[in-house]
Amino acid sequence: MFETAELGRSVSKSAFNEQVTDLRTELLEVQQELRKADFPAIILFGGVDAAGKSETINLLNEWMDPRWITTCAYGPPSEEEAERPDFWRYWRDLPPKGQIGFFMSAWYSRSVLERVHGVIEETQFDKNMERIAAFEQELAADGALILKFWLHMSYKAQKKRFKEFESDPLTAWRVTKTDWDNLDKYENFVATAERAITRTSTGDAPWQIVEGLDDRYCGLTVATAIRDALKKHLAEAELRKQLAAQMQAQEKKAAAAKKANGAEQAEGAVAKPHSGLTILSRLDMKQSMGKKDYNAKLAEYQAKLHKLDRKAIERNVSAIGVFEGWDAGGKGGAIRRLTAALDARGYRVIPIAAPTDEERAHHYLWRFWRHVSRAGRVTLFDRSWYGRVLVERVEDFAAEAEWRRAYAEINDFEEQLTSHGIVMFKFWLHITPEEQLARFKAREEIPYKRWKLTDEDWRNREKWELYEEAVSDMVERTSTAYAPWTLVEGNDKRFARVKVLQTVCERLEAALS
Amino acid sequence: MFETAELGRSVSKSAFNEQVTDLRTELLEVQQELRKADFPAIILFGGVDAAGKSETINLLNEWMDPRWITTCAYGPPSEEEAERPDFWRYWRDLPPKGQIGFFMSAWYSRSVLERVHGVIEETQFDKNMERIAAFEQELAADGALILKFWLHMSYKAQKKRFKEFESDPLTAWRVTKTDWDNLDKYENFVATAERAITRTSTGDAPWQIVEGLDDRYCGLTVATAIRDALKKHLAEAELRKQLAAQMQAQEKKAAAAKKANGAEQAEGAVAKPHSGLTILSRLDMKQSMGKKDYNAKLAEYQAKLHKLDRKAIERNVSAIGVFEGWDAGGKGGAIRRLTAALDARGYRVIPIAAPTDEERAHHYLWRFWRHVSRAGRVTLFDRSWYGRVLVERVEDFAAEAEWRRAYAEINDFEEQLTSHGIVMFKFWLHITPEEQLARFKAREEIPYKRWKLTDEDWRNREKWELYEEAVSDMVERTSTAYAPWTLVEGNDKRFARVKVLQTVCERLEAALS
Repeated sequence: MFETAELGRSVSKSAFNEQVTDLRTELLEVQQELRKADFPAIILFGGVDAAGKSETINLLNEWMDPRWITTCAYGPPSEEEAERPDFWRYWRDLPPKGQIGFFMSAWYSRSVLERVHGVIEETQFDKNMERIAAFEQELAADGALILKFWLHMSYKAQKKRFKEFESDPLTAWRVTKTDWDNLDKYENFVATAERAITRTSTGDAPWQIVEGLDDRYCGLTVATAIRDALKKHLAEAELRKQLAAQMQAQEKKAAAAKKANGAEQAEGAVAKPHSGLTILSRLDMKQSMGKKDYNAKLAEYQAKLHKLDRKAIERNVSAIGVFEGWDAGGKGGAIRRLTAALDARGYRVIPIAAPTDEERAHHYLWRFWRHVSRAGRVTLFDRSWYGRVLVERVEDFAAEAEWRRAYAEINDFEEQLTSHGIVMFKFWLHITPEEQLARFKAREEIPYKRWKLTDEDWRNREKWELYEEAVSDMVERTSTAYAPWTLVEGNDKRFARVKVLQTVCERLEAALS
Repeated sequence: MFETAELGRSVSKSAFNEQVTDLRTELLEVQQELRKADFPAIILFGGVDAAGKSETINLLNEWMDPRWITTCAYGPPSEEEAERPDFWRYWRDLPPKGQIGFFMSAWYSRSVLERVHGVIEETQFDKNMERIAAFEQELAADGALILKFWLHMSYKAQKKRFKEFESDPLTAWRVTKTDWDNLDKYENFVATAERAITRTSTGDAPWQIVEGLDDRYCGLTVATAIRDALKKHLAEAELRKQLAAQMQAQEKKAAAAKKANGAEQAEGAVAKPHSGLTILSRLDMKQSMGKKDYNAKLAEYQAKLHKLDRKAIERNVSAIGVFEGWDAGGKGGAIRRLTAALDARGYRVIPIAAPTDEERAHHYLWRFWRHVSRAGRVTLFDRSWYGRVLVERVEDFAAEAEWRRAYAEINDFEEQLTSHGIVMFKFWLHITPEEQLARFKAREEIPYKRWKLTDEDWRNREKWELYEEAVSDMVERTSTAYAPWTLVEGNDKRFARVKVLQTVCERLEAALS
């Protein structure tokens, strides 16, 4: 694989200078275009030691506008980082739209080194590479430009460079014992790198192998590749935008035609968007609980939850709860019955409102990743990432391709959380349309509840069946063994609150035993 | 101090219900007002165990719109938190403008407990209280509403409550061994609390002692106080806004009159805003360095810096560098000569561009606090918090009171950094107006440097003397023993780069020896 990167390519100083002026100018121009674009550029550098990763990144920072570039390199994870899923720190560092992130080895580093030193088996290594490919795929699907450069040097050339550095006291610091140790494992390292590159070189996130022997050649090659890839990606993004606009116009036309057609059939029954039989229609909505029974159960489960919470803190087990449901479905009340039994230092309730501009400038999951807590904590989301496949789907805030792809993205996200040992519980607080109407009316009458009722709530109500279809799809596609949904029959608040408490207790108990 | 909070005040259920409707409605109304206001509300709860901190916060979350409320409680700092100054985690959690943050004990907790258990002396305790008062003062000066409630219970009442809880297996979990241990130290705890309250009850951040025996009384009292304080603060903020607008109009008028007056004197010399003699005019701007000398020195200091960087990483010593200077003063080039010698995993360059909306919604120092790194890291700021007293002062982006107060705020911030063991170096890269003009012209001619030159640069140049005055004030007021400014004679780039490298080496060496 690396043979073609050991040819001793180099660029003379004069040839270099000749090309640099235009290249720098063009790089700056595409960077300006990127600033206005709707995607980030994620550029990763891997390679053997001393093949020029740092030098190349320094050069690019000099050639481009560094205000819109972040450079990230990683040591071993800190305690706080280790308490979260592996990818948490990379998610946090992803550049926002319009900007460039340079990543040094980053999400590849650990797996490659662990494999070289025999800490992990090949099957585990391959699994890690799959996870990486999925991660990059997800970012690319969201529009990100992903480029990966592998800076290569032959064993001989690397050894020669180390010796040259060492012979001068002023450059001797560039070579460390680790460098020599790694050189000893050169064959092994290169074989592992080859496996990594083969398994993660995808159409959307390709690797490019660059000969690292000559700084000028390496710098020119990488910079040219970045310029070309940015240009191409910008043009494609523009095309996609135009195409989307055309399709939207067509859809509108079709919808108008359908409506005109529908108006003629107005006498008949309005066709339901689905059969009317969803998983929600199977719920026994008559279930209820008496006050006395409720008070006893509430005390019982709160006491139990408190004990489990303490045990979870001791064992560094985290939990993440998702609360979704109809407007006036009782999410807030159910959450408060939980938090009353939790250690205040150990939980946070995250109400999901409109995203901030920092959040809007990232992948939609970014703003949830940033709330993933350290170990031994409980995080309760009052509405969540499921907005993507609920309100964003129904209200057309997300394109169909976006929300369709979200099911897999969400499952992947939750799989990362739970495989890290985090306990998940997800609740859909269900009420019937009749019960919702009764609650809306009650809210209208109590002055301090009126604020809870907005015009949007009434509008959402009109789309009940579309939402019901979305909920049904959501449960079908994201109720997994590791993060199952619990549907809560919520017409009776007492019954619902106890069911939530009981479910949380059961999930925690199972995880802690 | 607490006698008046041991009177056994209580509110009957019927009296409570009578008041609640109006109170909740009004609370929601002021919260809606707050949403549109230009300040956050920071509400802190302290008090003895079981006096109802959690219950009161739960009640307020039920009564108000929880989407604009965050609740923060703290355990012992994590490793990452301990690697930063104490206040870092509190800064991070401060609510943005328009929102409410409930804090449980928070920045008081550690000092009070350490004093009760004799870990720290009274003098240290008093010093900590001073730091807290300064922190709250700074937030209040930025407009924040700060309220602090101390929920009190007598020894007897607390003991009785513990026993009641313990007698029922369903509430027994509410009492822990720590609670009993703390009760043993009740006298000591209350005396320490009194000292804390006395020393930190300021006009802008007053403590209010509330009897915690009766949940209804406590809830009503706190909620009423919050409602009233919010109303008052909103009204005052509105008044201040009007006043500021009036003053601005007057200033404009005065400026116009002055201009008309000045136009008549146009024949005479334009009066300089200062004497022309600043600390900058003392610099020997003729200093330079030959190419050969430069290459040798560059290699020498980069080698030295690399060794120091490694030592700093080993010893978990962090460094923060600030780079300020004239446009085209050479900040970027100086920074790149530093980073070339640093371990890529250990440094970050933070270019300061316009703040994001999340940043704009907080105290202006918040966006710098969020970049304070964990231990053993180097953080280089390409422009910094000094923007407050430079561009924001000169361009009137900050009111005079704001930038004047910023000197003390900045000194306080840097004192917290350095007293935590962080090494600081601050550079002003100075060039003469003639040199700047030459560089601007050169930039105009090189295609890939043209982007660096904006209309703003030319406009800033016209305000050279105003900037020079601001720089002079800045150096005078913020060059401290713990974080001194280094003025760099930058007309010769080679001389400047070596001076920066050398200074960083010296500061690091002194800190590590």
